[in-house]
Amino acid sequence: MIQITLPDGSVKSFNTNSTPMDVAKSISEGLARNVISASFNGETVETVTPLTTDGSLILYTWNNDEGKTAFWHSSAHVLAQAIQDLYPNAKLTIGPAIDRGFYYDVDFGDDVLTEKDFKTVENKMLEIARGKYDFNMRSATKAEALELYKDNPFKTELIENLEDGTITFCDHSTFTDLCRGGHIPNTGIIKAVKVLSVAGAYWRGDETKPQLTRVYGISFPKQKELTEYLALLEEAKKRDHRKLGKELELFTFSQKVGAGLPLWLPKGTALRERLENFLKAAQKKAGYEMVMSPHIGQKELYVTSGHYAKYGEDSFQPIKTPKADEEFLLKPMNCPHHCEIYNAAQWSYKDLPKRYAEFGTVYRYEQSGELHGLTRVRGFTQDDAHLFCTPDQLDEEFKNVIDLVLYVFGSLGFENFTAQVSLRDPENPDKYIGSLENWEKAEQAIISAAKDKGLNYVIETGEAAFYGPKLDFMVKDALGRQWQLGTIQVDYNLPERFDLTYKGSDNELHRPVMIHRAPFGSMERFIAILLEHTGGNFPLWLMPNQVSILTLSEKYEKYGEKVLNLLENHEIRALVDNRSETIGKKIREAEMNKTPYMIIIGENEENENKISVRQHGGDDLGTISVEEFSEIVKTEINKTLKQF
Amino acid sequence: MIQITLPDGSVKSFNTNSTPMDVAKSISEGLARNVISASFNGETVETVTPLTTDGSLILYTWNNDEGKTAFWHSSAHVLAQAIQDLYPNAKLTIGPAIDRGFYYDVDFGDDVLTEKDFKTVENKMLEIARGKYDFNMRSATKAEALELYKDNPFKTELIENLEDGTITFCDHSTFTDLCRGGHIPNTGIIKAVKVLSVAGAYWRGDETKPQLTRVYGISFPKQKELTEYLALLEEAKKRDHRKLGKELELFTFSQKVGAGLPLWLPKGTALRERLENFLKAAQKKAGYEMVMSPHIGQKELYVTSGHYAKYGEDSFQPIKTPKADEEFLLKPMNCPHHCEIYNAAQWSYKDLPKRYAEFGTVYRYEQSGELHGLTRVRGFTQDDAHLFCTPDQLDEEFKNVIDLVLYVFGSLGFENFTAQVSLRDPENPDKYIGSLENWEKAEQAIISAAKDKGLNYVIETGEAAFYGPKLDFMVKDALGRQWQLGTIQVDYNLPERFDLTYKGSDNELHRPVMIHRAPFGSMERFIAILLEHTGGNFPLWLMPNQVSILTLSEKYEKYGEKVLNLLENHEIRALVDNRSETIGKKIREAEMNKTPYMIIIGENEENENKISVRQHGGDDLGTISVEEFSEIVKTEINKTLKQF
Repeated sequence: MIQITLPDGSVKSFNTNSTPMDVAKSISEGLARNVISASFNGETVETVTPLTTDGSLILYTWNNDEGKTAFWHSSAHVLAQAIQDLYPNAKLTIGPAIDRGFYYDVDFGDDVLTEKDFKTVENKMLEIARGKYDFNMRSATKAEALELYKDNPFKTELIENLEDGTITFCDHSTFTDLCRGGHIPNTGIIKAVKVLSVAGAYWRGDETKPQLTRVYGISFPKQKELTEYLALLEEAKKRDHRKLGKELELFTFSQKVGAGLPLWLPKGTALRERLENFLKAAQKKAGYEMVMSPHIGQKELYVTSGHYAKYGEDSFQPIKTPKADEEFLLKPMNCPHHCEIYNAAQWSYKDLPKRYAEFGTVYRYEQSGELHGLTRVRGFTQDDAHLFCTPDQLDEEFKNVIDLVLYVFGSLGFENFTAQVSLRDPENPDKYIGSLENWEKAEQAIISAAKDKGLNYVIETGEAAFYGPKLDFMVKDALGRQWQLGTIQVDYNLPERFDLTYKGSDNELHRPVMIHRAPFGSMERFIAILLEHTGGNFPLWLMPNQVSILTLSEKYEKYGEKVLNLLENHEIRALVDNRSETIGKKIREAEMNKTPYMIIIGENEENENKISVRQHGGDDLGTISVEEFSEIVKTEINKTLKQF
Repeated sequence: MIQITLPDGSVKSFNTNSTPMDVAKSISEGLARNVISASFNGETVETVTPLTTDGSLILYTWNNDEGKTAFWHSSAHVLAQAIQDLYPNAKLTIGPAIDRGFYYDVDFGDDVLTEKDFKTVENKMLEIARGKYDFNMRSATKAEALELYKDNPFKTELIENLEDGTITFCDHSTFTDLCRGGHIPNTGIIKAVKVLSVAGAYWRGDETKPQLTRVYGISFPKQKELTEYLALLEEAKKRDHRKLGKELELFTFSQKVGAGLPLWLPKGTALRERLENFLKAAQKKAGYEMVMSPHIGQKELYVTSGHYAKYGEDSFQPIKTPKADEEFLLKPMNCPHHCEIYNAAQWSYKDLPKRYAEFGTVYRYEQSGELHGLTRVRGFTQDDAHLFCTPDQLDEEFKNVIDLVLYVFGSLGFENFTAQVSLRDPENPDKYIGSLENWEKAEQAIISAAKDKGLNYVIETGEAAFYGPKLDFMVKDALGRQWQLGTIQVDYNLPERFDLTYKGSDNELHRPVMIHRAPFGSMERFIAILLEHTGGNFPLWLMPNQVSILTLSEKYEKYGEKVLNLLENHEIRALVDNRSETIGKKIREAEMNKTPYMIIIGENEENENKISVRQHGGDDLGTISVEEFSEIVKTEINKTLKQF
């Protein structure tokens, strides 16, 4: 008999060689129907792996990330089999599960897989799925493995790098693949499949090696889930920030300027300014002070901060002077500069906290293949701030920062978020800088702040950076996708490295604690996420143009200007479209530009001194006075934008 | 007989071998008394040089720059003689006239010249001056020259680099110096001298060569002028922007960040923001659109713009990527980026002009020895804008830009300025890019704009850049020093290089014209000049803190906060100083911080619901209501800050 501990802490006895599926059945028939993968003592096992020792078992269903991984990993096997059946000359390489779905990299030789073939592949996959084939793991010697793949140089290369005795295969139906395990019970669970796309990919990501075809797919246990997912994908495509950024004329890229270096067009710049002013106003109330620092610093600065040792080689390389007597680096972060600003004076404990904020543009090298719109760039502006405080002030400062972050999220319509608190690993105290006492103070401060502020948070022990614990915010967008946004980090390291001090009430010099924080994270990435979250229909207060005044004909230009003036007096941002175009065309364009309100004016409106108002999306608000309309706008704005 | 043409165009006959002084005498005794140097056919001559051919003669007095140069050059001889008399072992090297005064670089050997010796040197100089010694030029052979300086390796090196037959000496009193000429008639004209300072300087500016002592001096034809100059110098020292920047906590430099890379402290950042917002508001009214571009660009971008070919070698060197497969440059100017922003769409003539503005931070390498506070830095922010217009729009756009520049100067208290219009050299049409027709259009546009706007301007033919004519503004500060500030430049080159186009009414593609303009020039340099111009007493609208509310004791904190709120409602920037310090100390500190108004509150004020107001500098405005005070502030602001 073996003793199996379950996640709820209960321990049950089972016969030696019982499988995870046996355990599931012993708990309930329902669970047995739904369980699709398992881990034993922290290692992934098959649901049919015989258990031979005591241990902790976790059973996973489709609702767990681990369940989905097994599901999609298994689906990759099915995809591989389908390809092998349809394209006998294709050479398989590797095919992992990914965040959403899976892919397989294939050398199709002279064949080509294009979109019109997707249906055929899907049908073949479904045929295999319906066979309800079990996935069976087995060991193989290196010699056997090499023999099996003697015509496949890719698998051969993989096997050659493996040690004899560690090589395993997975068989299902007539298909065998080199595999480390982690499958669903059988192919029959896969009810819906979709080949999503193909893309080029180099073998082992190395562009000097052969180019393969990466086949992306996704699968689900229910057809309905696939349908929903495809609808979501369709919506995500419409909301792709690169597409919306172009349509709304927010930003552009230029080959000459360089990949990953966005150029902000007038409307995008206005949007950024509005966001920055919004945060600046809140920061001012919270006692922050704005500073400005250059975009380069001597290499020495980053040697002091430790960034050069850590990232130097993988970064933009040093900038030399004509005589090569000095070296500078593009700044990858603002903190070293802010430390030097702090160091420009000798502070007393009475002066603290100092809260230095800067919309600081930083530059970090990313490989060109990894760049993506505004979410992965080489230059971006952090809504950065560094708080320098006494250890005793940490608690309150941390709470205040959380308040600010929540205010920012709330004002921008992100209602759905969680927080992750990353603490040190208490079993490895040597990994961390700073005194144990200060760490405990800081960790308690973060946890109590998270509790106090009613955050929905999880604690991740051992996930802290070596220099201090932190709290990250994860937001869910309108499509249910999760993004890491704001971060708040405690830092004991830089104050040490930059020898930051303050004079305490004891007249001695002490080390301040530093908090790094950025509610948006980066302006570029935040705007990308906001675009995809809102589909470009930003909260009204943020819209660069809130109202378009559309004249029925050029005769009404003067009345249009009058309405514009009245709106501007109410601090409503508007423009007049007095072109000699049809009103239909003007409305369509205003709709396409996501204009929240359209005011239509013609003879009636002018005679009555009123305006006809139409909301984005088509709702007609009737013919009202400018006063009434501005009240509507104000009410709408106040729904999202509160006072901080 | 020779024919001498004078600057007024008149031609007079003189005996061969007449001197410029003879000519002066023939005009008037008064002129002869005042003339101190001359040029003949464009070349500097002595006032005693015999003229042997026909030619054009200009006579200079102390009121001409050329006269001052001769005066100070001659004074350098006198300084050298004084040093040689007092320090017989000193080895003289070179000693030119400079903008204000002169210096001599001397190898003092084992001797040292320090401030306490200045008086002795000055007395010796005055003694020589009183001798009224003539300056006599004479030729020497290389052998003679080398013999004279056989103990002076510096002069020997200079002589060795000269060709025999071109070597001349100047004798006065018992002193001889290697010299190319350009002296005043005799030492007696020098009535007042001052040794200003000493500094280290390398021989020929090369730090591998011996270090010399540079002795700075100045001299005048009247004692009164020296007294006034020293007073100005004293005032300039007090207003030195580096000193004020520190006292007012505006900016700092850090050795670690690097020389010439200012770090803006909170108060300086607020000041910059206020200036930026002021210009942004005016620009918005003038139809500008803000854009944002990165601080780097691919090397290719600057190859296209031509900047790399022109400045590449003397600039910050290219930034390489880890794999060395790409090269970027720190941007030295914003125009290439703005051209790419323009290029992001195909514009029609109806869309023009496009006016893109950016507070764009650029980086330009300067040798560390040439850096100076905020006036000579390695990173600075231009209040840049580029206007893209049709050739026909140039006239009006240029006028509008002048309006904007004049508005900026007026709002900041620069009332005293001149403009320089730089045109092409009509005799070298090949030097310039762009059609003759467009050049004529642009030059006429600039001249007519300068006339129209009533500018006090001079035209400099041949001073235009190869890419277009320009207009520069020179302002005089409160100390009478001249600074180049705003610039407006027409550019036909970049539109060509970046292939910029717009669709004309003829449906064909045409080249737009580009205007570069920056009213401030750079934020750093402008703030430096503004600090020295105002001594830190900025126009009221610009002061980061306009009012300090000083409580007589901590009891009045609440009333102080109430007053603060009332002032904030009137959009007056204020702070409360409620420290437990004496009111005297609070006032002194507020005065030192250049606070324009101090409000003092105690029991009386609270009981009467009034405030006691004191102006910077000591004027007492009495006990008044907050309402009355805010009217005073508004009136004062409106004196400088008009509506654009």
